[in-house]
Amino acid sequence: MNKFDAISPLDYRYYSDELKPYLSEEAAIRYQIKVEAALAKTLADNGICSQKAADEIEQAARSITAAEVYEEEQRIKHNIRALVNCIQRKVSDEAKPFVHLTATSNDIISTAEALRIKDACEQVLLPELAALEKTLIEIAEREKETAQIGRTHGQHAEPITFGFTIASYISRLGGRILKIREAAANLRGKFSGAVGAYNASSLIIRNPEEFEAAILKKLSLKPGSHSTQLVEAEYTADLMHAIISAMGVMANVADDMRHLQRSEIAEVYEEFGAQQVGSSTMPHKRNPINFENVKSMWKAIMPRMNTVYMDQISEHQRDLTNSASSRFNTEIVAAAYTAAKKLKKTMKNLAVDKESLRKNISSSAAAEPAYIMLAALGHPDAHEAVRKITLSGKDFLQQLMADKELKPYLAKMTQQQIETLKNPEKYTGIAAAKTQKVCDEWKSKI
Amino acid sequence: MNKFDAISPLDYRYYSDELKPYLSEEAAIRYQIKVEAALAKTLADNGICSQKAADEIEQAARSITAAEVYEEEQRIKHNIRALVNCIQRKVSDEAKPFVHLTATSNDIISTAEALRIKDACEQVLLPELAALEKTLIEIAEREKETAQIGRTHGQHAEPITFGFTIASYISRLGGRILKIREAAANLRGKFSGAVGAYNASSLIIRNPEEFEAAILKKLSLKPGSHSTQLVEAEYTADLMHAIISAMGVMANVADDMRHLQRSEIAEVYEEFGAQQVGSSTMPHKRNPINFENVKSMWKAIMPRMNTVYMDQISEHQRDLTNSASSRFNTEIVAAAYTAAKKLKKTMKNLAVDKESLRKNISSSAAAEPAYIMLAALGHPDAHEAVRKITLSGKDFLQQLMADKELKPYLAKMTQQQIETLKNPEKYTGIAAAKTQKVCDEWKSKI
Amino acid sequence: MNKFDAISPLDYRYYSDELKPYLSEEAAIRYQIKVEAALAKTLADNGICSQKAADEIEQAARSITAAEVYEEEQRIKHNIRALVNCIQRKVSDEAKPFVHLTATSNDIISTAEALRIKDACEQVLLPELAALEKTLIEIAEREKETAQIGRTHGQHAEPITFGFTIASYISRLGGRILKIREAAANLRGKFSGAVGAYNASSLIIRNPEEFEAAILKKLSLKPGSHSTQLVEAEYTADLMHAIISAMGVMANVADDMRHLQRSEIAEVYEEFGAQQVGSSTMPHKRNPINFENVKSMWKAIMPRMNTVYMDQISEHQRDLTNSASSRFNTEIVAAAYTAAKKLKKTMKNLAVDKESLRKNISSSAAAEPAYIMLAALGHPDAHEAVRKITLSGKDFLQQLMADKELKPYLAKMTQQQIETLKNPEKYTGIAAAKTQKVCDEWKSKI
Amino acid sequence: MNKFDAISPLDYRYYSDELKPYLSEEAAIRYQIKVEAALAKTLADNGICSQKAADEIEQAARSITAAEVYEEEQRIKHNIRALVNCIQRKVSDEAKPFVHLTATSNDIISTAEALRIKDACEQVLLPELAALEKTLIEIAEREKETAQIGRTHGQHAEPITFGFTIASYISRLGGRILKIREAAANLRGKFSGAVGAYNASSLIIRNPEEFEAAILKKLSLKPGSHSTQLVEAEYTADLMHAIISAMGVMANVADDMRHLQRSEIAEVYEEFGAQQVGSSTMPHKRNPINFENVKSMWKAIMPRMNTVYMDQISEHQRDLTNSASSRFNTEIVAAAYTAAKKLKKTMKNLAVDKESLRKNISSSAAAEPAYIMLAALGHPDAHEAVRKITLSGKDFLQQLMADKELKPYLAKMTQQQIETLKNPEKYTGIAAAKTQKVCDEWKSKI
Repeated sequence: MNKFDAISPLDYRYYSDELKPYLSEEAAIRYQIKVEAALAKTLADNGICSQKAADEIEQAARSITAAEVYEEEQRIKHNIRALVNCIQRKVSDEAKPFVHLTATSNDIISTAEALRIKDACEQVLLPELAALEKTLIEIAEREKETAQIGRTHGQHAEPITFGFTIASYISRLGGRILKIREAAANLRGKFSGAVGAYNASSLIIRNPEEFEAAILKKLSLKPGSHSTQLVEAEYTADLMHAIISAMGVMANVADDMRHLQRSEIAEVYEEFGAQQVGSSTMPHKRNPINFENVKSMWKAIMPRMNTVYMDQISEHQRDLTNSASSRFNTEIVAAAYTAAKKLKKTMKNLAVDKESLRKNISSSAAAEPAYIMLAALGHPDAHEAVRKITLSGKDFLQQLMADKELKPYLAKMTQQQIETLKNPEKYTGIAAAKTQKVCDEWKSKI
Repeated sequence: MNKFDAISPLDYRYYSDELKPYLSEEAAIRYQIKVEAALAKTLADNGICSQKAADEIEQAARSITAAEVYEEEQRIKHNIRALVNCIQRKVSDEAKPFVHLTATSNDIISTAEALRIKDACEQVLLPELAALEKTLIEIAEREKETAQIGRTHGQHAEPITFGFTIASYISRLGGRILKIREAAANLRGKFSGAVGAYNASSLIIRNPEEFEAAILKKLSLKPGSHSTQLVEAEYTADLMHAIISAMGVMANVADDMRHLQRSEIAEVYEEFGAQQVGSSTMPHKRNPINFENVKSMWKAIMPRMNTVYMDQISEHQRDLTNSASSRFNTEIVAAAYTAAKKLKKTMKNLAVDKESLRKNISSSAAAEPAYIMLAALGHPDAHEAVRKITLSGKDFLQQLMADKELKPYLAKMTQQQIETLKNPEKYTGIAAAKTQKVCDEWKSKI
Repeated sequence: MNKFDAISPLDYRYYSDELKPYLSEEAAIRYQIKVEAALAKTLADNGICSQKAADEIEQAARSITAAEVYEEEQRIKHNIRALVNCIQRKVSDEAKPFVHLTATSNDIISTAEALRIKDACEQVLLPELAALEKTLIEIAEREKETAQIGRTHGQHAEPITFGFTIASYISRLGGRILKIREAAANLRGKFSGAVGAYNASSLIIRNPEEFEAAILKKLSLKPGSHSTQLVEAEYTADLMHAIISAMGVMANVADDMRHLQRSEIAEVYEEFGAQQVGSSTMPHKRNPINFENVKSMWKAIMPRMNTVYMDQISEHQRDLTNSASSRFNTEIVAAAYTAAKKLKKTMKNLAVDKESLRKNISSSAAAEPAYIMLAALGHPDAHEAVRKITLSGKDFLQQLMADKELKPYLAKMTQQQIETLKNPEKYTGIAAAKTQKVCDEWKSKI
Repeated sequence: MNKFDAISPLDYRYYSDELKPYLSEEAAIRYQIKVEAALAKTLADNGICSQKAADEIEQAARSITAAEVYEEEQRIKHNIRALVNCIQRKVSDEAKPFVHLTATSNDIISTAEALRIKDACEQVLLPELAALEKTLIEIAEREKETAQIGRTHGQHAEPITFGFTIASYISRLGGRILKIREAAANLRGKFSGAVGAYNASSLIIRNPEEFEAAILKKLSLKPGSHSTQLVEAEYTADLMHAIISAMGVMANVADDMRHLQRSEIAEVYEEFGAQQVGSSTMPHKRNPINFENVKSMWKAIMPRMNTVYMDQISEHQRDLTNSASSRFNTEIVAAAYTAAKKLKKTMKNLAVDKESLRKNISSSAAAEPAYIMLAALGHPDAHEAVRKITLSGKDFLQQLMADKELKPYLAKMTQQQIETLKNPEKYTGIAAAKTQKVCDEWKSKI
């Protein structure tokens, strides 16, 4: 298969080799093999089969490829039985009966899925998110004193600092990283058989729950408090929620950054390669395509949470209507990784235009401090008084100072308070200190 | 790339070669090339360049591969400019300036996408849905007289026929086929330039709207009533709605069929291959895996309509946050095709168990005709009278006939009416005739 | 119930009296009564009961309130039987048996729902959307010559006119209005009984399909080609898609307008009342709260399409798992109306700041015409030549004119072409003419 | 407003008075008032205003109604300023300036929302879920030994017990209760001002973070690690995920129960009132309407998680496009409560039909233990040997015993193993013990 014969954008365009050992179908089968081997070994540990048989099974399993299994599946229409057949063909008659013994297909599949998704999160996704977090912390610390106009409703509000803007993402992304970490570590395996009551294993093993725990321990997993043919769907749902909500935070970063790149705002910009083309017809364009891509990936993936929620419902001890759909879960991990990687790289190269930042702090930012100080000084209707001044559309400070009714209050203001009104770019509250505090907190947590 | 290195289930598991010429990334670039060639020819038709230059461009374009374009994109970070560069390298200096002239990237991309999705629908998806419809019609005509208990709330209601059950799907799927047909034929292209006002083309072409229509006509497409950098998103949204709602109908068929296969109901079953394995641990199982798969594919795809709806919103003359996400639209077509193909094959092999069908029609089905006839004969509270009889839990007919209060009404019933009460499997209304009528209607429409 | 005891924002905050006669629960029951009356009359037309009995039923039905029906439902746990009981209590013993005769509950409910949603669309939603469309047309015609910079990726691209921007919404919203109109008119009723095979009616009526058609005709509805206990779900799904995609267009308008109100862009603004407060702490703020609200309503409603899609699936002749969920469909209509009304009002009061519009057209807009004209004059690599000039960051026109390599091509340009380069605000393609054309088209269609 | 004038099913049909003190709009304003009072008191604690002024404010606030606030909002178009005006009108000139001082509207709104949703979860939703959990535990303990056929793919698999079936829900619902509890307790308030940098409060308070913490402590809340105008959206998203996934578990219970009520399965049924009507036309019906309702409520609510995810994204320090949409969050809590209450009541009245349970355990359940025992005894291809026997369609046990090839293995079986094959209803693994273990675990946790 040529890469460009693929239909999925994740395969022909956004594929990253780091994902292959966990998220490819070849990897899925590698992990199922690992699980079959752990089962064989535990059977041997319990004296059901010989150690030699277990070794044979492990050995045989290692040589099997996805292609081989798919070919056998083509013949018998059952994917795990196909895997079992492939293993059995490569072992002695003595070992044959112990391949897969006591297991239902889904003991293997559920456990293997938990394991590879856990590994993908811990080995690939979480390190990349941590690297993004680190990049954000570097920017925030660097720019913690750089004044920027705060914006609400797309309107100039009160000043903050650019580092403070970034601190918001640090805190939110940090929280999501902890959630993903916790949910990935909490994925569970199972070896409770076809309907969850350990029917098969209890026939030949004295304590089937201990037997299950022993297999899973070999794989660094734990069982849940109950299972049917399926591991409880909520472990995966919690992880997918954590990942998708992390993508939401990244999409917010991307949206903010691309708006700050608007021609009229121009506070930040993506560095452009010398060879890079902005538009096929408008040679002057510098488009925020990487930020747009991060947002777009979120749009593609976010609604899939509904698939995860629908897969919570499986009739009785399980129906198979979650089979095809849950295969797409790995794409959520892949897309999150792709977004994190792109966002990290783009943020690393983000240039800040201090000239624009300065220019965008307008004098109207003095309205709030004026109102607060007047009120604190006892003006009974300070908000309304200030609102009326702003309605005039003329220079705020000038109007304020000239207002007769306000004179007695202005007279009571300290020199420092007057300075704040005159230099609204200094009216940044505790933005710089708070930024550093947030950075310190998350440096210690991630 | 090995097929099993893919992450997407659509690529490693559900891929179908029929989709490749339309839905692969190679195909995407093939279609973009087609559009560039149509543009060049129309430039020549308008005397902007020579016919020879246009031929050169078309010739050169044909030899280009996706791999080549991706390599160039790697260098300049712009996919359509990469394509243009690849073409320009293969033509004479005389032809060079006319490659892509007047076009913005998205004139090419939007038009090519419309074209290949239209083709995929018309060449692959719709024929498969029509074949499924035909299969359903065959079953319905064959089984139009086969009595089946109708079910509401999972409870036995009144009898119908199995053909009538199928007629429901014929009518609903038929309606969806018409919707997909209409929406696919209604996809639009555009050649209105970077912001939709024909800025570039109006510099060198007298009537740029005619110029646009001429290019699109070569591709059997039409422009919309207005465009920005983008074709209006609603043409695609309508198609995706049509496809996803068709998948909903297929999911309903699948759900019904797998419930009719429940061990206790057993009215239908999927034919099983002699080699086919039902379960890796329960050798006796005959699982409705194909129907389950059709339902599951719907679960995976349905929520993506939300992505399509989010992609309706693009700031001003367009932002690019629909770029990655809209690349996944082709997957909706692919999944619908996969579901249709699987459902058709499974329905073709569906076996009907007449013994079970007969057994499942219970005598309680006589309650409704009893109530209707009593009421029509003037009983002032027939529903309540019959409800009380059913509460007893004893044989309905016996209780009814023995009821003293009802005697005068029963005496007025015709022999035929009494027969209906005694043989509820005959109480199928106009099920058979209606089934045939539905079959005839849709045979003529599809 | 106090209005502010309500939980739903649609009831305590966004409620509009125009919606009450169609979308309230009182209205639901009013419509069910209408349907019961039409049934009784058709029974009389067919000689099943006397005209007098039918009149009695209609009369009795009119006096019934929702409260009465809910009280009876409390007792017997069945909403339609409750309605029937309420009617029966008010008619003579002679008329009693003919109330609801041959109908299943859902004949009444489905038909009544189709009717009231159709009416709500035709009487309330569509007129409001048409009024919005008219408002947009007025703006577009007024501003068709007002130059505005076109924006892609939030970056200045090529100039258009503000009217042309609005024309995009006219065309898209116009298309949606036609879709809603079509889908609303296409809603269907049913009188095919409990499982769709006309079991009950065929007992006492010779041609039950004609009987069904006759009842529905009295209500200006038609039956579908097939029904079970339910009307096919796709008629409603098509309407909900049409409405939700119309909300998507409105959300796009809202997003664009609120961005054009950004402090740095300031091309438009919502008119503010003299008493209106922008912020509780920042007295100077003028926030685009109405546009934000329109976008937010879309966010609340759009995902509900997934509910509609899930409701497509109903087991066998119907399960009831669509009952509570489909009750929320009316909220989609209500929210769309609320959004349309708010958007219309806000657009009516939209002020355009021509000074800002002029200021925002920068000289870089000359890059595209320069490239196009150079290419048309035969420059073999015009795009790259222009791209390099823009990289310098200096005044584009000056650099262009000074470029030695380009001299021979510049010499060939006409005076008019040079003028376009010097006055990029004139480089608006056919924006004005196209705007008028779009206005004319939709004035004739809506 | 008449209850039946409402549009929302939550208001006219599913409303529960328990929800009113938390989830109604009146409650929203009550909570905002509480927050304004806590602010005033903390201002007094910090010496900004007198204790008397703070008391005056608290006193005045208590008397304000939603209707009053809405009327003022009508005039000035700002909801929180309206509330402030209402309070100010009722206090002395001395107290006036200190109403709302340092706060931005959203300090009040976000904090009040966190508080009332936390209270609604802790006071209403969680107790109801715990009561449901308790009901399930009672059933599980009662039925832990009652054999039931396990089902996968809707097909009979291996036997379990009915208590074990219920144990699955106990474990899953228990897990969700813990998640909701944790997420509700983790909701945060904020008092960091208009853009999150404590701009206003830092003008008059030395340590504004301590000031914020002090206000929130009065309300039993904490601040987050960072805020903008908004509390970080993820606290709410986590709670909504927890609630919606709990509804998923309830929907699964409901689906399973209604399938177990199918006419052909009939293992359980909802108790029916003597007056209760099953169908308006089929007097014999006993429909699982309560379970259907629980599933349907899930369908209505689940997709709204996408709204929550979209509301994660707010431009810069906030745009208001989350305002209308997040108002619907309370409906998620209300719907979950409604579903829990209905499910609890229905499960309390659930009747178990032991006769049907026994009948539904078929002899084919012996296939798995036969395969496992043959394999454990060294048969090299036990699965295939058993699969072939089941293909015959004849009585499984008879065929097995008669199979010549298997004779040597059967001879090695113990008497107890042979008994299991003969009495598959005993082949329930450790179902009973596991059920008790799960019950014990969750009794201690909830």
